[in-house]
Amino acid sequence: MSPRRVPVSRRDRPAKAALSRKGLISVALQIMVDEGLERVTMRRLASELDTGPASLYVYIQSTAELHGALLDELLFGLELPREETAWREAVMELLSGYTRILHRQPSLARSVLTLRPSGPNYLRFVDLLLGYLLAGGVPVRSAAWGVDLLVQLATATAAEHGTRDESPDAAGEVDLQEMAVREAIPAEYPNIDRVRDELFSGTGEERHRFAFDALLDGIAARP
Amino acid sequence: MSPRRVPVSRRDRPAKAALSRKGLISVALQIMVDEGLERVTMRRLASELDTGPASLYVYIQSTAELHGALLDELLFGLELPREETAWREAVMELLSGYTRILHRQPSLARSVLTLRPSGPNYLRFVDLLLGYLLAGGVPVRSAAWGVDLLVQLATATAAEHGTRDESPDAAGEVDLQEMAVREAIPAEYPNIDRVRDELFSGTGEERHRFAFDALLDGIAARP
Repeated sequence: MSPRRVPVSRRDRPAKAALSRKGLISVALQIMVDEGLERVTMRRLASELDTGPASLYVYIQSTAELHGALLDELLFGLELPREETAWREAVMELLSGYTRILHRQPSLARSVLTLRPSGPNYLRFVDLLLGYLLAGGVPVRSAAWGVDLLVQLATATAAEHGTRDESPDAAGEVDLQEMAVREAIPAEYPNIDRVRDELFSGTGEERHRFAFDALLDGIAARP
Repeated sequence: MSPRRVPVSRRDRPAKAALSRKGLISVALQIMVDEGLERVTMRRLASELDTGPASLYVYIQSTAELHGALLDELLFGLELPREETAWREAVMELLSGYTRILHRQPSLARSVLTLRPSGPNYLRFVDLLLGYLLAGGVPVRSAAWGVDLLVQLATATAAEHGTRDESPDAAGEVDLQEMAVREAIPAEYPNIDRVRDELFSGTGEERHRFAFDALLDGIAARP
């Protein structure tokens, strides 16, 4: 049983294509990819679909729901690990694929951080992650609680780096932080001084890998 | 040496208080606490300070910089662990305190996720975390890379829960997700089926603790 009945349009005038949730989301996706999530408003969607905004609320009730549906569309393209992939590497591949998809849409990534997606492709992604964690011997509760954490880290990483990549303002902030840390006075910040060289060491890829390894180790080792 | 010289106002008319970065941030903080971060605009600040928006850019160049400064003001109130606190508990206390502060300002938390704060109170917070990690025997590189992760988890947690607490729309999304998970067909989602009871088990506090324990274990155990 699905949680909500899919509404069917009563329009039958031949001049306009019948409205549907699927059609609406496909138009929204196109606008997001071409112009960015900021341009995906109910008003704009209504205009593209040659109708009034009020007619759309039958299909999508809120911005949160629309963003969740857009995420689900993107996750349709998620690459799945090959059959013989070891569980740990499979978890990494799934999470990296998810991060890459969201990295291209930083606004959506920021929104997804505070959403609770519920679309079929998102559920399949979670189901796959859980399957690999359980196959790796992670206890049931740790797998169930840990999967949320792994996805949160992936979403936050995409939001953080995607936003910085698209905003010169944010890049300036990185420089300011690095400068502040490099110039922090040892007497006031003795521990920053002790690890100073490592605070900016490593490539993005290395730190990314460190993050997922550390979290996955920790989840797997929880009693 | 500080990374940027603090500008000094040249105004000397007695009728208006002299502009300063400190004064500007203190007004911004008051507006955020009373009305929310959305109302903290350069225009509004200028009007409160009886000047034009252009005059403010001498003190604050960007929204990112303003938000970083607001975070730093809030972190002035961060409670520090007592002298005798064991390192692990001290890390938890610091991160919980930080999360609590940001949880009250979800918009700021969302913004901080994509910032690189560089204020003195933020640096002190990082310095303290590093000190406890090193005292706990965490290797230098793992402490340096791990501190970013711990703070990211704390910020993401505050953004996620703070946003849900303030938005009824988001609360509806939680219900939709829970419903979708509870009704997910075993044949299609076999792993969700295996862990179904645990996916929504535990209190927020328990899951919060699990998250920080797992991440901290993983960071400390990295070779």
